[in-house]
Amino acid sequence: MGKPLEGVKILDLTRVLAGPFSTMLLKELGAEIIKVEMPGKGDDSRGFGPFKNNKSVYFLSINHGKKSISVNMKSEQGKEIILDLVEKCDVVMENFSPGTMERLGLGYDILKKRNPSIIYASTSGFGHTGPFAKRPSYDILAQAMGGVMSITGWPDCPPTRVGMSLGDINAALYTTIGVLGALYRKKITGEGDRVDISMLDCQLSILENALIRYQVDGVSPEPIGNRHPTITPFQAFKAKDRYFVVGVGNEDVWHRFCISLNRDEWTKDPRFEKNMKRTQNLKELTALLDEIFIEKNASEWVSLFESHNVPCSLINKVEDLFNHEQIKSRNMLVNVTDSDIGEVTIAGNALKLDSIPEEKIKKPAPEIGEHNYEILERFLGYTKEQIDSLKENGVL
Amino acid sequence: MGKPLEGVKILDLTRVLAGPFSTMLLKELGAEIIKVEMPGKGDDSRGFGPFKNNKSVYFLSINHGKKSISVNMKSEQGKEIILDLVEKCDVVMENFSPGTMERLGLGYDILKKRNPSIIYASTSGFGHTGPFAKRPSYDILAQAMGGVMSITGWPDCPPTRVGMSLGDINAALYTTIGVLGALYRKKITGEGDRVDISMLDCQLSILENALIRYQVDGVSPEPIGNRHPTITPFQAFKAKDRYFVVGVGNEDVWHRFCISLNRDEWTKDPRFEKNMKRTQNLKELTALLDEIFIEKNASEWVSLFESHNVPCSLINKVEDLFNHEQIKSRNMLVNVTDSDIGEVTIAGNALKLDSIPEEKIKKPAPEIGEHNYEILERFLGYTKEQIDSLKENGVL
Repeated sequence: MGKPLEGVKILDLTRVLAGPFSTMLLKELGAEIIKVEMPGKGDDSRGFGPFKNNKSVYFLSINHGKKSISVNMKSEQGKEIILDLVEKCDVVMENFSPGTMERLGLGYDILKKRNPSIIYASTSGFGHTGPFAKRPSYDILAQAMGGVMSITGWPDCPPTRVGMSLGDINAALYTTIGVLGALYRKKITGEGDRVDISMLDCQLSILENALIRYQVDGVSPEPIGNRHPTITPFQAFKAKDRYFVVGVGNEDVWHRFCISLNRDEWTKDPRFEKNMKRTQNLKELTALLDEIFIEKNASEWVSLFESHNVPCSLINKVEDLFNHEQIKSRNMLVNVTDSDIGEVTIAGNALKLDSIPEEKIKKPAPEIGEHNYEILERFLGYTKEQIDSLKENGVL
Repeated sequence: MGKPLEGVKILDLTRVLAGPFSTMLLKELGAEIIKVEMPGKGDDSRGFGPFKNNKSVYFLSINHGKKSISVNMKSEQGKEIILDLVEKCDVVMENFSPGTMERLGLGYDILKKRNPSIIYASTSGFGHTGPFAKRPSYDILAQAMGGVMSITGWPDCPPTRVGMSLGDINAALYTTIGVLGALYRKKITGEGDRVDISMLDCQLSILENALIRYQVDGVSPEPIGNRHPTITPFQAFKAKDRYFVVGVGNEDVWHRFCISLNRDEWTKDPRFEKNMKRTQNLKELTALLDEIFIEKNASEWVSLFESHNVPCSLINKVEDLFNHEQIKSRNMLVNVTDSDIGEVTIAGNALKLDSIPEEKIKKPAPEIGEHNYEILERFLGYTKEQIDSLKENGVL
């Protein structure tokens, strides 16, 4: 046996980002992903930029290597096809607004009757329970409602969004964890499970020390730019030419940091000798360091600190990532060739397991319904004529 | 059988954040976590604030419900205890700098000889391969090197750190996914696996559309404040009293948005009728909306949009989360009572599975070595006298 999820079949009704990102990870683990799309229209994110040759590169970057079937789930025959596929699959995943699956006649209770050991995983803005359950949501809402926007950015700037879709992607990761937990349990017990992941729940879960800081300090944490709230120095500094970061995560690193700057005396300075003191005297310490760092270029400071084993880095722009020797060495940028788009580079697979061979080249994303024949024949025994007729009738 | 990972035993050598956050999630899924700490010293994060009654609430918030044994892994006897425990466990997890386990005589090859079906999971700054493998890292380095700092914040501000430890927590989620994949595979094949998660790899994986925008546009994406790069309007607006966000994620929402503002004509306005046009004419649209929104308070706009099913939210501060009806309803804030700290509130479990019962109260984090007797007796058959003697000799 090869990859971890070899043989696992996932009926993927998800669209846009949170759901598809999760099924992308499950695909990397070896599962077969059968993406269900509305005939003609497809996943909303096929309409999201950036585009190349009028085709969404965004969609490609999240749906590579999946299979697509086009099914009009609002038609009776389409619904029957979904129910028949549920019988043949291990997992059904969806990220519709809560209530949609029930309205389609495809709620968990109905699916469970057709396949008692089905794992049913939902990803939604607020979860399937509680007063907000049926409200629409998006990444920006999760970031705003869940508190991360209130602690990101600068005191004198407007609220700041995390520059990637943290609300969606974080929920995608939690969904993946939930599905994998349920799959493990199913392998032992034969039982299905229901996974109900909420973007808001997941945002709350990753606030790290913000919840407890509020309880200890009695005031809400505020945005503090690029430093760490309780570890110092652990922030960006301006060198002569550009910014760099340094992370002094424990007292041993602090000693090495001081030695590398010829400031050994700071290790015994009552203002700076321990992390708690350094955090209390942040302004004083930062002012002293600013004076030092402005004298040389960032790469010089990074080299100096590297030679003393002090964690540090330049602040990379996206273009810098494409020539980064560690990123290359880890095969974290891979190519995909799409017949319309041409060749593009996307993120590689960060799930490095001995059981998952590295791929230098990924398969493209499917066209809408590209795998209608393959899936409906293999899973349900449909003939070519049956499939053609369903297509003519607008079911596929 | 109850929770998904009931009966799974994890030997947890991790410290600080990325590793312990992952084992916290595995604990929520039902695994037994045996945290190994250096006698007397313990996990570094026991020294991280915020503190209450001189004890780290930070440590508690990430290590609740785990078991702790104190083992000096640098001693021969301590090393033997670890190897004996490896034989009894399903998974070993560590987030030392690569090379440390080998130096301790506890490298993967040695552990695998003692337990061929062991799953060995590492979380590190750069992974265990490649030219950067042995460099030290921290969250701020992952954020800086992996590109997210370069796309978060405002054009005229210094580089901005995401306000929570995204580098660590993201890697923790990927680690959890890797371990779960390996556990599933082990259940089928009986084989162990090696999981090698890099904070930098994981950062690259969640950049979402930044990598492809660079390839299509030819320039690195820059920080853009609180809007979405390709979806409009999808951003924060200033109302009379405070900021709120609105997310117009597709054309149906755009129609409802226009109707709710009595601007039906915008749905046919060539500048705004489609998302791509709205994104091109962002400044013009934002200026028009700013004029409208400044007239009323944020809560009035949120009410109006809610009644038209347009996704929107106030931007919550941390204090707002404690009284949020959806958060309460989903049991996402739970209490822990520690004998020194007293009662504190921490994030609940976002992994909502039917097979995981909700807990209103969580167990506290362990003291260093609190479970020495329980674990060493139950797993290895040690007597109280043996354990006491090991303690006297500084092994425990």
